[in-house]
Amino acid sequence: MNATTNRQWLFKRRPDGALGTEHFEWREHSTPAPSEGEVLVRVRLISIDPANRAWMNGRTYRDQLAGGEVMEGLALGEVVTSNDARFETGDLVEGLLGWQDFAVKPATQLIKRRRDVALETQLGLLGPTGRTAYHGLIDVARVRAGETIVISGAGGAVGSIAGQIAKISGCRVVGVAGGADKCAWLTDTLGFDGAVDYKAGELRRALKAQCPNGIDVYFDNTGGEILDACLSLMNPFGRIACCGNVSQYNVARPTGGPGGVPGLLVTKRLRMEGFLYGDFEHTAATAERALQEWARDGKLILANDVVDGLENAPAALIGMFEGRNRGKLSVRVAP
Amino acid sequence: MNATTNRQWLFKRRPDGALGTEHFEWREHSTPAPSEGEVLVRVRLISIDPANRAWMNGRTYRDQLAGGEVMEGLALGEVVTSNDARFETGDLVEGLLGWQDFAVKPATQLIKRRRDVALETQLGLLGPTGRTAYHGLIDVARVRAGETIVISGAGGAVGSIAGQIAKISGCRVVGVAGGADKCAWLTDTLGFDGAVDYKAGELRRALKAQCPNGIDVYFDNTGGEILDACLSLMNPFGRIACCGNVSQYNVARPTGGPGGVPGLLVTKRLRMEGFLYGDFEHTAATAERALQEWARDGKLILANDVVDGLENAPAALIGMFEGRNRGKLSVRVAP
Repeated sequence: MNATTNRQWLFKRRPDGALGTEHFEWREHSTPAPSEGEVLVRVRLISIDPANRAWMNGRTYRDQLAGGEVMEGLALGEVVTSNDARFETGDLVEGLLGWQDFAVKPATQLIKRRRDVALETQLGLLGPTGRTAYHGLIDVARVRAGETIVISGAGGAVGSIAGQIAKISGCRVVGVAGGADKCAWLTDTLGFDGAVDYKAGELRRALKAQCPNGIDVYFDNTGGEILDACLSLMNPFGRIACCGNVSQYNVARPTGGPGGVPGLLVTKRLRMEGFLYGDFEHTAATAERALQEWARDGKLILANDVVDGLENAPAALIGMFEGRNRGKLSVRVAP
Repeated sequence: MNATTNRQWLFKRRPDGALGTEHFEWREHSTPAPSEGEVLVRVRLISIDPANRAWMNGRTYRDQLAGGEVMEGLALGEVVTSNDARFETGDLVEGLLGWQDFAVKPATQLIKRRRDVALETQLGLLGPTGRTAYHGLIDVARVRAGETIVISGAGGAVGSIAGQIAKISGCRVVGVAGGADKCAWLTDTLGFDGAVDYKAGELRRALKAQCPNGIDVYFDNTGGEILDACLSLMNPFGRIACCGNVSQYNVARPTGGPGGVPGLLVTKRLRMEGFLYGDFEHTAATAERALQEWARDGKLILANDVVDGLENAPAALIGMFEGRNRGKLSVRVAP
């Protein structure tokens, strides 16, 4: 590529089932010029998130991805040219920059980030990932010391942080993940009290054994059968923080909704609440302070699973739905 | 019956589908004597509630009803003999007195009620029914003026009150009920802004037409297809107060859970929360004051559907699941 080439992954069409390379198309394009109020950004590190896949299926909190557009993705990048007083060349910014080398964005859609913290940490532990875990557990589920917390997708970025925050909060923490290796990592490295391998079968029985006093809070990244099992084990006045529905994003036919809803919500007086980290601007500063402090004190770690090269972005997202990543998955476009 | 005969309806066995008279058994028994700390109560007015049917199916917030025991039911009664200092002969009390003429209860399980208010009003508008509507709408859903509220089971006791409280709160209120007559009653007599007959088909389309700005709060008495339809029409940050799941109580095979859970909860950041009025002792006084005031000012009415005679209790409960009652259903055992 030369200086003016913009390599891009386009999203081609809605997958009818599992995501594959055929749903993306590579293009080499010219780098656009920013207009007044816009900023040209060099993309450096792209966040690979389960939500990327959900956006393909239909309208969520944003419009469905349209075939032919640049594949959308949250990313960190560096300002090349700014036509807005808020940014100058060299600034590090966060935004929906997409799967490409260069993005032109209105300045209003970018957030300035610190230059003195590693990109992986800013995108993960101290960024959207860490904040999602924090707000879900602290602001939505409102965990209290002594409670039993179950976390699905516990081997992923948000789940692994949420579990550690629950431990810091004085809870008994049980993670649900796929495979014995990931489960061992949860208990041995991250300090979870227990782990359940959902691929091993007998899910409800295994969960019950790990939660002898029932479940007070379920941090749900997956929906599906794990949600069903947790609902049946929830204690009265339990809370379910609905963060994602990953089990349903990459399948042709979603399984039915949870049979315990609304019956068990009534009889056990449960609260289920969906959330997005961006809705918590009022507690963002508190969250960031806490995350920084815990990270500094070594109480909170995040495994960073960085894939090198924009050309590997589709494979990274496809692999996420095959359970290949551990911790925060991202694609490094430019060092 | 003579003075010492206690007529009783026993619950016979768990219905496998629709409730019928064969699930009850009539017995004439001797009236028991209260021990120390117990109270003998003459049952006067029994509340007939959808929950009565749910108790037969399995464990809820209480143990499943066992075959052979006196059919359980909330009721008002008059103290005949008290072996506890808290009560004296002639006191009016509320408690789970059951479907019978006389009940012996520990004094700790009874609540003293006022003698200067009609029994129907104490059981309905100012009692558990009114409080369920109030707490669900005010404390759980936290309705705000200008919001659009949908209420299912709107022709029933709780639903018809909840709708009126929502109107008092400045909301647009749409009720869902079975049949054109009930729907006309909601709009013409109770002042609902709109009504949808769920038996008329095209439920989602009809709801959408009545809620051009989407749904902010759904007060759910039914679960089932009405919950599904409402979920799809909820606005971001909407709330669903889960009060009951009546559509599933009287069927052999419950329909599947709502397909929009947890996906739509996440993308729209919805809150679903189950509740029982008894959990709100901290706001009970506020609720009772408000209900009394609204009733006194004529802003709140409750249709009382009183069936005469203990012998008709099973038919009353069976009829409730056939949609026969309007407003608060109760059985008068003794005037």
